[in-house]
Amino acid sequence: MPLVTFQPEGKTIAVPAGTALLEAARSAGIEIVAPCGTRGNCGKCLVRVISGNLQTNSSTLSESIRLAGYVQACQSAVQQEDLVIDIPPQHIRSGQFADLSLDLDRIEDYLLPQPSQLNPLTVTVVLDMAGTDPEDDLSDAERLTHAIQKQWGKEEVRFSLTALQKMALAMRADPGRVTVKLSRFGDHNQVIDILPGHRFTDDCGLAVDVGTTTVSVQLVSLIRGEIIDTRTDYNGQIACGLDIISRINYAGKPENLARLKSLVLETINRLIAGLVKEHQLVATDIANLALSGNTTMVHLLLGLLPEYIRLFPYTPTILQPPAFRASEIGIPVHPETPVHIAPAVGSYVGGDITAGLLCTSIAGESDETVMFIDIGTNGELVVGNAEFILACACSAGPAFEGGGIRQGMRATRGAIEAVTIDAASGTAQAKTIGDSNPRGICGSGMISLLAGLLRSGWMDSAGKLNREKPSPAIRLEKRQACYVVHPADDDQQEILISEADIENIVRAKAAIYSAISLLTRQAEIRMDEIARVYIAGGFGHYLNLEDAITIGLLPDIPRETYRYIGNASLLGSTMALVSRDFQQKQREIGRRVTYLELSTDPTYMDQYTAALFLPHTDLAAFPSVEIRK
Amino acid sequence: MPLVTFQPEGKTIAVPAGTALLEAARSAGIEIVAPCGTRGNCGKCLVRVISGNLQTNSSTLSESIRLAGYVQACQSAVQQEDLVIDIPPQHIRSGQFADLSLDLDRIEDYLLPQPSQLNPLTVTVVLDMAGTDPEDDLSDAERLTHAIQKQWGKEEVRFSLTALQKMALAMRADPGRVTVKLSRFGDHNQVIDILPGHRFTDDCGLAVDVGTTTVSVQLVSLIRGEIIDTRTDYNGQIACGLDIISRINYAGKPENLARLKSLVLETINRLIAGLVKEHQLVATDIANLALSGNTTMVHLLLGLLPEYIRLFPYTPTILQPPAFRASEIGIPVHPETPVHIAPAVGSYVGGDITAGLLCTSIAGESDETVMFIDIGTNGELVVGNAEFILACACSAGPAFEGGGIRQGMRATRGAIEAVTIDAASGTAQAKTIGDSNPRGICGSGMISLLAGLLRSGWMDSAGKLNREKPSPAIRLEKRQACYVVHPADDDQQEILISEADIENIVRAKAAIYSAISLLTRQAEIRMDEIARVYIAGGFGHYLNLEDAITIGLLPDIPRETYRYIGNASLLGSTMALVSRDFQQKQREIGRRVTYLELSTDPTYMDQYTAALFLPHTDLAAFPSVEIRK
Repeated sequence: MPLVTFQPEGKTIAVPAGTALLEAARSAGIEIVAPCGTRGNCGKCLVRVISGNLQTNSSTLSESIRLAGYVQACQSAVQQEDLVIDIPPQHIRSGQFADLSLDLDRIEDYLLPQPSQLNPLTVTVVLDMAGTDPEDDLSDAERLTHAIQKQWGKEEVRFSLTALQKMALAMRADPGRVTVKLSRFGDHNQVIDILPGHRFTDDCGLAVDVGTTTVSVQLVSLIRGEIIDTRTDYNGQIACGLDIISRINYAGKPENLARLKSLVLETINRLIAGLVKEHQLVATDIANLALSGNTTMVHLLLGLLPEYIRLFPYTPTILQPPAFRASEIGIPVHPETPVHIAPAVGSYVGGDITAGLLCTSIAGESDETVMFIDIGTNGELVVGNAEFILACACSAGPAFEGGGIRQGMRATRGAIEAVTIDAASGTAQAKTIGDSNPRGICGSGMISLLAGLLRSGWMDSAGKLNREKPSPAIRLEKRQACYVVHPADDDQQEILISEADIENIVRAKAAIYSAISLLTRQAEIRMDEIARVYIAGGFGHYLNLEDAITIGLLPDIPRETYRYIGNASLLGSTMALVSRDFQQKQREIGRRVTYLELSTDPTYMDQYTAALFLPHTDLAAFPSVEIRK
Repeated sequence: MPLVTFQPEGKTIAVPAGTALLEAARSAGIEIVAPCGTRGNCGKCLVRVISGNLQTNSSTLSESIRLAGYVQACQSAVQQEDLVIDIPPQHIRSGQFADLSLDLDRIEDYLLPQPSQLNPLTVTVVLDMAGTDPEDDLSDAERLTHAIQKQWGKEEVRFSLTALQKMALAMRADPGRVTVKLSRFGDHNQVIDILPGHRFTDDCGLAVDVGTTTVSVQLVSLIRGEIIDTRTDYNGQIACGLDIISRINYAGKPENLARLKSLVLETINRLIAGLVKEHQLVATDIANLALSGNTTMVHLLLGLLPEYIRLFPYTPTILQPPAFRASEIGIPVHPETPVHIAPAVGSYVGGDITAGLLCTSIAGESDETVMFIDIGTNGELVVGNAEFILACACSAGPAFEGGGIRQGMRATRGAIEAVTIDAASGTAQAKTIGDSNPRGICGSGMISLLAGLLRSGWMDSAGKLNREKPSPAIRLEKRQACYVVHPADDDQQEILISEADIENIVRAKAAIYSAISLLTRQAEIRMDEIARVYIAGGFGHYLNLEDAITIGLLPDIPRETYRYIGNASLLGSTMALVSRDFQQKQREIGRRVTYLELSTDPTYMDQYTAALFLPHTDLAAFPSVEIRK
């Protein structure tokens, strides 16, 4: 079998001729990101052939790229010959994440579960019982039922089969004393485990946020309602498509749907295993798990066909999944753990949003009207108060996460996250995440760059670079102007942004801003009536508010109105994890939200077109933005 | 490895030295019955060593048996030498059962589910639905919920995960038409499967009776409420002990408990597989299963430790198990089938009795007082009417099933089932099941024999044989008289019954009769106030009523009062299978029954002693019995 060596890691693997290069890399333990789901049209899985020949379809690549020895890993197959392949560093999933300090400090105190509300779905209960009595003819299950009902109310008590199997010995090892894990479903209580004697434990639970790009797991003390630790990694499904639509397309074949389910489970379970090991826990002791994700992510995790989420009229299989057992889903905590899954509102306003809204005063039923913005590949927007909640989704596209931008990348180490423009020369000073050599530019860097160019007059309201005044940073490539964000040096390629890239960024911000303005219009409120704007999501962390307003991504309202709340989906799930009251509150939110379909609104196109300028066609809406004409 | 050959089947198997002979036989596919659970004290697993030496503990065997080359298979282990072993035919489980014509004809018509009551727990439902509507924003699950609620009432509709996984495609293959399997739990309906289009099927279900000795499975048309076919075989657990107490002892080790669970499942599943194959069904299409068994059998099937059923105060883990899914229990019908398990009254009045009572007018809430008698190794007795139900269990011992009787056997081919005594000579004419050569004597044969001897004066009221008048059938062995039921001939051993055997039979009948009389006394009714006596169980099938009354096993009341209803546990489960109303009725019966513990009743010993005579000390209670003094 031919040998394939992957540089710079130097891993070598023998694979049969005909093996796809992407598959060969995966077998060698190297994940190459293939955002388009191996359809060959994203050009993100480029690798360079150092030696050897392979079979490749390179029709979608430019000649210059082909000549430089690049092929698309997803479109290439190993032949009889040995190969040496170089994988450019930005295509290796780094697994490094900015420290988002995910804790409840970001959330306004009055919104958090109060001590009296710390009542997770499953509780560990120590019980004292009378001994067996020849007179009463009670079975063990009946005797235990009486003890539970005495302490926890008259609801019917049911038993899992595994609990029944342990019952006889558990009830006799330390007579009269047992500890049970009791899941409280409102209309009945379910005993999911029973242990002999009194076990006083500091129970932990897990909150899980399944994002399209990243998955986060948070270990939480149920007793104290405090976050113990958080782990985040890329969603393993990235290998099968970067955005939701690519994943849905990939899921078309039953074996692919199964693969997506198992990939995200691998990610979740690896993160859980890491937390369990680090904190010296036993995974099967954990009997509380709350999970949130957008509608597609929840479908894929449960093995539900997502196809009709993508097709008009965008119908998911289920919006409010019941609490399936962890073992049914495939998560290796206590097998009988009822997993709370955040209810969704629609195909494009998912459980991540109903979880996120728990972090806002909408959950607190405030009279003030507030807005909630979660910007990712898809943007979700909510506006509401105690009277109404209106939500919409807008497809901002992947620009802010690096997609469709030649040297775009996600906000990881080496990404340019902020840019300062020298007004006189037009040249840029770039700041990268981790202060390392720049490898590309991420969403916040793009916004910072555009705002800087706009303020300094090196770019106009239409997103065109200033070609009249010479600058070392601006040059023409074919008929298009390009801006050098970072010049090449010895071991560093040039970081460029083209006018076509800028157009993509402007389209993304226009999609978001027009959704915001349509939503407020539908709610019949003015921008200045919004008492608070909650910004959620990783993207918001690096976002310079002033820059975002300058380019017209966010409304020009008092800056103190804005509040960044981090990964609200995860934090909301943490709240639901520690409190059944919050699970209830979340379900109520889910029912209260009215979904607004933008694509069928006749005024959406007008709003969108008006937002394709920087900051906006209607400059009166951006009074504080000063741009040099 | 040494080779072991089993005769007469001629099967040879290689096993490691040290393998127990019982285990070696099992590996060769030959089940040797070991009623005592391999403790070595029943002497039922005797085999003969034809050639070769093995290691054996034979301290409990008589010298003559040892010298004849017999060893206990359970107490013997293979050594380095090859062996040839002869297994006496009566120790091979024949798998042949008398045709009990198990059908509902035995049950009084008015007690059967009426056409309006044919409503099994899980129904197959064809549904018409509106198509997806862009205006309504409903998920597939919600749309299906509305269609179900329109047809089946407003109860909450829940979904199994596997049903959700099939939903999107099923709802679109034949738009607007689906077929669902719906389990109706009263407070909610659960969709356990969904198929595209309209499928009109003649649904079948399975009733299962798990007896200590035999297991029966009945295939039932749910639509017509008719029995299609029945299969019966020995409970595979017999290899681990013949009676309940032996099985409980054997289950003391966790691996043995697991083995008992898997042995009975093997039996059940083999019977199901046979029915499914014969009737060209698909097992996973079957979504209704109702099961009954005594409390220990249900515990073993569910993997629940039965230990405390045996120990005072006789506390089972659970009396009324919820409907676990078939896949949880391990029965390969539709995995989500909720299995109805008959509720028990106590440790020794189990679900087989609440199922059996469905076949009696107690279930019909008659004003008449009736009695229900199920005689097996354990006898269960019930007396009641619309006002009260009183039940007790009595340990008749295994005599009527062949245990403790030197040449006793179960009622299978070759068993003497009836005996005619020649009054003059005292010799017997024996009739065997299948009219084959006699291999032993079964319970009905013993009763027939004793009644004949008593009537003809060859045995007295104390159970002693007449030694004064010479008879070729009566001889002395040591100091004990023996009766030759069938003389030896060329290829046939002699069938003998000793006075010690007779004593055991009398003890068994006394246990049953004294329980009957105590129960009526507690209920404050006279025997002649009993309007009907239902006799259930395989034992009753061969029972000659007149003989049973003659020896004082059953009360001397008008013969037409008695009604034999066959395997009432199985038939009751069939009724529960086809009708949720009958499941409900069964639970009500379970709650209404008052259990009477005989062993703590101060008058029990007196009653028992009085019944140790034939027919009874109180001859006035048996006016129609004529015996020759």
